[in-house]
Amino acid sequence: MTASGFLEEIADVGRDPQRGGYSRHAFDAPEYDLREWFVDRALGLGLDVETDRNGNIWAWWGPPGRNAVVTGSHLDSVPGGGAFDGPLGVASALAAVEALQEKGFRARRPIAVVVFAEEEGGRFGVPCLGSRLLTGTIDPDKARGLRDADGVTFAEAAKKAGVDPARMGPDEERLDKIGRFLELHVEQGRGLIDLGAPVAVGSTVIAHGRWRFSFSGQGNHAGATLLGDRADPMLPAAATVTAVRRLAAGVPDARATVGRLVPTPGGTNVIASTVDLWLDARVPGEGTPGLVAEISQAASAAAREEGCQLQVTRESYSGDVVFDDALRHALGGWLGGVPELPTGAGHDAAILAGFVPAGMLYVRNPTGISHSPEEFAEAADVEAGAQALATALEQLAR
Amino acid sequence: MTASGFLEEIADVGRDPQRGGYSRHAFDAPEYDLREWFVDRALGLGLDVETDRNGNIWAWWGPPGRNAVVTGSHLDSVPGGGAFDGPLGVASALAAVEALQEKGFRARRPIAVVVFAEEEGGRFGVPCLGSRLLTGTIDPDKARGLRDADGVTFAEAAKKAGVDPARMGPDEERLDKIGRFLELHVEQGRGLIDLGAPVAVGSTVIAHGRWRFSFSGQGNHAGATLLGDRADPMLPAAATVTAVRRLAAGVPDARATVGRLVPTPGGTNVIASTVDLWLDARVPGEGTPGLVAEISQAASAAAREEGCQLQVTRESYSGDVVFDDALRHALGGWLGGVPELPTGAGHDAAILAGFVPAGMLYVRNPTGISHSPEEFAEAADVEAGAQALATALEQLAR
Repeated sequence: MTASGFLEEIADVGRDPQRGGYSRHAFDAPEYDLREWFVDRALGLGLDVETDRNGNIWAWWGPPGRNAVVTGSHLDSVPGGGAFDGPLGVASALAAVEALQEKGFRARRPIAVVVFAEEEGGRFGVPCLGSRLLTGTIDPDKARGLRDADGVTFAEAAKKAGVDPARMGPDEERLDKIGRFLELHVEQGRGLIDLGAPVAVGSTVIAHGRWRFSFSGQGNHAGATLLGDRADPMLPAAATVTAVRRLAAGVPDARATVGRLVPTPGGTNVIASTVDLWLDARVPGEGTPGLVAEISQAASAAAREEGCQLQVTRESYSGDVVFDDALRHALGGWLGGVPELPTGAGHDAAILAGFVPAGMLYVRNPTGISHSPEEFAEAADVEAGAQALATALEQLAR
Repeated sequence: MTASGFLEEIADVGRDPQRGGYSRHAFDAPEYDLREWFVDRALGLGLDVETDRNGNIWAWWGPPGRNAVVTGSHLDSVPGGGAFDGPLGVASALAAVEALQEKGFRARRPIAVVVFAEEEGGRFGVPCLGSRLLTGTIDPDKARGLRDADGVTFAEAAKKAGVDPARMGPDEERLDKIGRFLELHVEQGRGLIDLGAPVAVGSTVIAHGRWRFSFSGQGNHAGATLLGDRADPMLPAAATVTAVRRLAAGVPDARATVGRLVPTPGGTNVIASTVDLWLDARVPGEGTPGLVAEISQAASAAAREEGCQLQVTRESYSGDVVFDDALRHALGGWLGGVPELPTGAGHDAAILAGFVPAGMLYVRNPTGISHSPEEFAEAADVEAGAQALATALEQLAR
């Protein structure tokens, strides 16, 4: 089946009627349906399927072993996300394996397709949670204790999906098997539009992290409380949103965003008692912590001015990543000199890049928009991407 | 049973473990349980119970008829609200009726205890929805179409609770039966603390209304989208929160609040595509619309600057209310010269005041805080309030 055909099969899973697009979150019902679909399709290709101790699914072509060529991506989405971010890499991996099988390719190394858990951090807040756990870049206790918006912990959700939380954590034996990791992903930007090309090789990922700003004040009645008697945490939260843009604009190539903000209790006629907001900040090089420190100072001053308290918590941080030089160079050769592109988006491949030679392929997105229902890829580009992935797997596993 | 005893019976219904306090919303499971509790207790006092066409519950002592003395309040809460706002008026009404029965009082007029639906607007956005429908101050089609956060309409929720949405609307026959309406409520402010008194008579309610500001921009990836390429609706929303405080501070005695703000899709690594915020604005006299117009202009300019769109919708508005002069004067006499207090909080009594002689009694709140778990009333003050209500009902119905 083509990669588009695989995507078509899951086109109705996890649609979000309120936000548009898809809401498929780690271990929720739609993502669980997608996992079952993946297992079924992998078994249909004769692959051996296992779920690792961190909830990532591995489908092996040939006996699992060292020097494996591993590809894959994730099936979860941001809330109201697009159809391609994640599933395109999984569908292309399945299509590439099928194409190699059909042409009678005999791999000399094991090939595996992997589906990582909670890549977006859309439910439990920390992105690339499955690959961070695998590589030991997050404390398993911290991961187990992460809570979703309803207060359910990652441990509880994983357990319900059949993953034993007690066994979560670094998986060196598995990591040792990965010879090369290659992730195909829809592009999250306009690079390939501008270049007029369907496929690129990934060069770098900008440093990025997430911080939670929790403002607390005094909940009270919106009509009966005079302005001078208030400690309304919405005020410093709003001042922080404004400061994020102002301060980030002063740092070359910085991106800083508040896309999630939750007042509690959240009633129209109620002064909030707390407001939580999440800062997503990314500065190439070493600049991210400095920018966040400036933002925290502005937030703290705004909180003080309103008689509110502020607590800032770092939820995740990853430095700049440069993908494996040799792999990038080889990919460029095998794929006929396709362009290289940097990205501001994080990926499991960037987590793995700290441990094994890793690389990425990007497929053109004609809208340039992602994390949105408008994210797109033309069928011809999807097939070009799957073909490029098949070529790369063949070369790597020969 | 004492009013405190009635409150004790419902102390475990609708507790909100996340926000603290209570979340009891129109026709949800906890509010439905409270309705059943009320019906049961009213029947226990020998009252005749009926639900009107708008979902308000009426419990009659004596045959329903004209010149009735009606008291009551509501059982729904704001999200994470206190135990007294609403239920205190209902519990005090039940206790007052029981006290009058025990002393053998023979009323010459019918007495009714009413529970109004959706007083807080905590689920469907429009406060005093039950009394607005009863009095014809909201279009039934508009009311039926109001949606909660999950997209459920008021019509659907009411139907599920046994109320026929087709019959919703003005109920003149019922309104004609009300000779006097008297609502007892916990004070939402510090007036009685400062006066050192347990009970007051209500004088005025400040004009108040709710407006929804919907900002729309372009959802996109938080890491891959440069600052200059963004149309992020969180920016003008934050600027509006700041403008609300700044502009309201320039208007004497104005209160203006943003307690509810919802970005969509609401992901940490996603630039929001839309942000909705709700403005609660209250200015004594005619000043509210002018203040909202200034805020709208500031919001509109901020939206334009970020390349976003803005739509402002008025969800409700009520002008200043002065409670019935004769009733206030009489209450003051019967209750031994208790003080009069104005309020910035809206109430069903203020809606009814446009149609029938209406008044209010307030019970001291030693925290001065309401719409919060910290709202409180001492047991002695609760009984003083119920006693004052019994005295007033006896005088009005004799």
